[in-house]
Amino acid sequence: MGFPSFMEVLDFIGTFAFAISGIRLASAKRFDLFGAYVVGVVTAIGGGTLRDLMLGVTPIWMTNPMYLICSGIALLWVIVFGKRLIHQQNTFFIFDTIGLALFTVVGVEKALALGFPLWVAVIMGTITGAAGGVFRDVFINEIPLIFRKEIYALACIIGGLFYGLFDWLGVDLVLTQCLSGLSVFLVRVLAVKYHLGLPILKGEGEEG
Amino acid sequence: MGFPSFMEVLDFIGTFAFAISGIRLASAKRFDLFGAYVVGVVTAIGGGTLRDLMLGVTPIWMTNPMYLICSGIALLWVIVFGKRLIHQQNTFFIFDTIGLALFTVVGVEKALALGFPLWVAVIMGTITGAAGGVFRDVFINEIPLIFRKEIYALACIIGGLFYGLFDWLGVDLVLTQCLSGLSVFLVRVLAVKYHLGLPILKGEGEEG
Amino acid sequence: MGFPSFMEVLDFIGTFAFAISGIRLASAKRFDLFGAYVVGVVTAIGGGTLRDLMLGVTPIWMTNPMYLICSGIALLWVIVFGKRLIHQQNTFFIFDTIGLALFTVVGVEKALALGFPLWVAVIMGTITGAAGGVFRDVFINEIPLIFRKEIYALACIIGGLFYGLFDWLGVDLVLTQCLSGLSVFLVRVLAVKYHLGLPILKGEGEEG
Repeated sequence: MGFPSFMEVLDFIGTFAFAISGIRLASAKRFDLFGAYVVGVVTAIGGGTLRDLMLGVTPIWMTNPMYLICSGIALLWVIVFGKRLIHQQNTFFIFDTIGLALFTVVGVEKALALGFPLWVAVIMGTITGAAGGVFRDVFINEIPLIFRKEIYALACIIGGLFYGLFDWLGVDLVLTQCLSGLSVFLVRVLAVKYHLGLPILKGEGEEG
Repeated sequence: MGFPSFMEVLDFIGTFAFAISGIRLASAKRFDLFGAYVVGVVTAIGGGTLRDLMLGVTPIWMTNPMYLICSGIALLWVIVFGKRLIHQQNTFFIFDTIGLALFTVVGVEKALALGFPLWVAVIMGTITGAAGGVFRDVFINEIPLIFRKEIYALACIIGGLFYGLFDWLGVDLVLTQCLSGLSVFLVRVLAVKYHLGLPILKGEGEEG
Repeated sequence: MGFPSFMEVLDFIGTFAFAISGIRLASAKRFDLFGAYVVGVVTAIGGGTLRDLMLGVTPIWMTNPMYLICSGIALLWVIVFGKRLIHQQNTFFIFDTIGLALFTVVGVEKALALGFPLWVAVIMGTITGAAGGVFRDVFINEIPLIFRKEIYALACIIGGLFYGLFDWLGVDLVLTQCLSGLSVFLVRVLAVKYHLGLPILKGEGEEG
């Protein structure tokens, strides 16, 4: 084992933040502890699992117990600090956005490493970052939030395209990772700060 | 690349029609442009993706960008012609039914080509044709329509069985494809014209 | 073919019981016969299918038509005995719990046989036993029951851990299967008899 690498620490933070978001929404629906843990796990690893099934490899969480342990720590955190979490909104927004950025980069890299073209890799990065939240919302019987709120998955797509651009320009790998992750982070932060969303399609029965 | 084959043109039409159906339902729920596109994509390629995961091969849309491009054109179509789509109901019903017929034939053939028995192939054809609509309805938080409306998935099953029959009778491949696809198309059209549905199971608390 | 083994007979009973539970809930939502059958099939084989996709092997129901035939018999059973099923509650609870116990053991064994570590095997056993019910509830547009009712998935986890313990102690394979299955059965029966549930996480807006 030895010390975890910088990327692994970020992966830990992202998993933890995504699990917290799932557990908090499950607790609002009065799920029991087990149900809340499952929703947390699905939020954190659902995107990576769907990606790995499509790429034809063993889901990442089956190769390293760290993901389930992180989600367990997130459950303890919500139990212990439940009432104070409201005051940690900004902290968790930052964690969640770091998770989104990192998961996107991990997804893009994994698809490229397996020989898929960039456009598939960009989608795999987006699925890694955003699909877990969709599964979470299906489980708690809500319409997926990312289809209606501020720019979210689009940040992953932009980050993935930057990854491809830097790669094509011959930029160093670590720098490419950092810059494309940073672009996901910035797009998401700016979208929330300025309430930027995509236009809503008008339903057919509405005035226009 | 070169010119697309006749089958590819039909595949394009089917993907386009299925994507339109997803995008229209998403717009009725006030999804944003990205959300509507995702629902359109899932409706169009969700069935084929589930089929390919079960068959153990790479999902078809990851091998050819045509499916995502088709769905993008469908999104533009809904944006531009939104209000007029109501007057195109019959046209889209025909497109959707062509998609259903073609997707069924494609699913049956792929499973047979991979060495699975006919009963698995019939199910794979049905999943290819009908599962995308189920995913669409789960995403927009509705009970899947195909479980309650006129005969839909049953048309795929009938088409798949005809495929097996013609194949067993030694009918030419192209003729087998056309006749089994035609049977899906006719069963569906007749079911809608005459409002044919399967009996509804009575709930246990109801009068009988 | 020849006579089915003892395990296969139990597998038949479990599939039948799980399919009945799906079909009954679908009929309460006024699904048509096809929809009810699909929900029954998904309840019975959904967990095993997700397990097999994650393990990277062909879903079990594609290798043996028995699972779909069992679900068909379950549909006939509900059609014929619909009104009397209410008086068979206890019988079905026993069948359902036998199914849960057996599916757990099957899932644990399959993962271990493919070389995965025990902690992955325990999760695969739990998914085999419990995920079908989650898919069922998503399809009928309800919040999954197992996240809120008496101990259910936890029984699978306990049974899986007992399997690992007996295996580690060098207990005979058949005895290990029986004892770990029995532990799932007993935990579930005791949980229902004494209304044992896990604590519910308090939502953030609630008094507490």
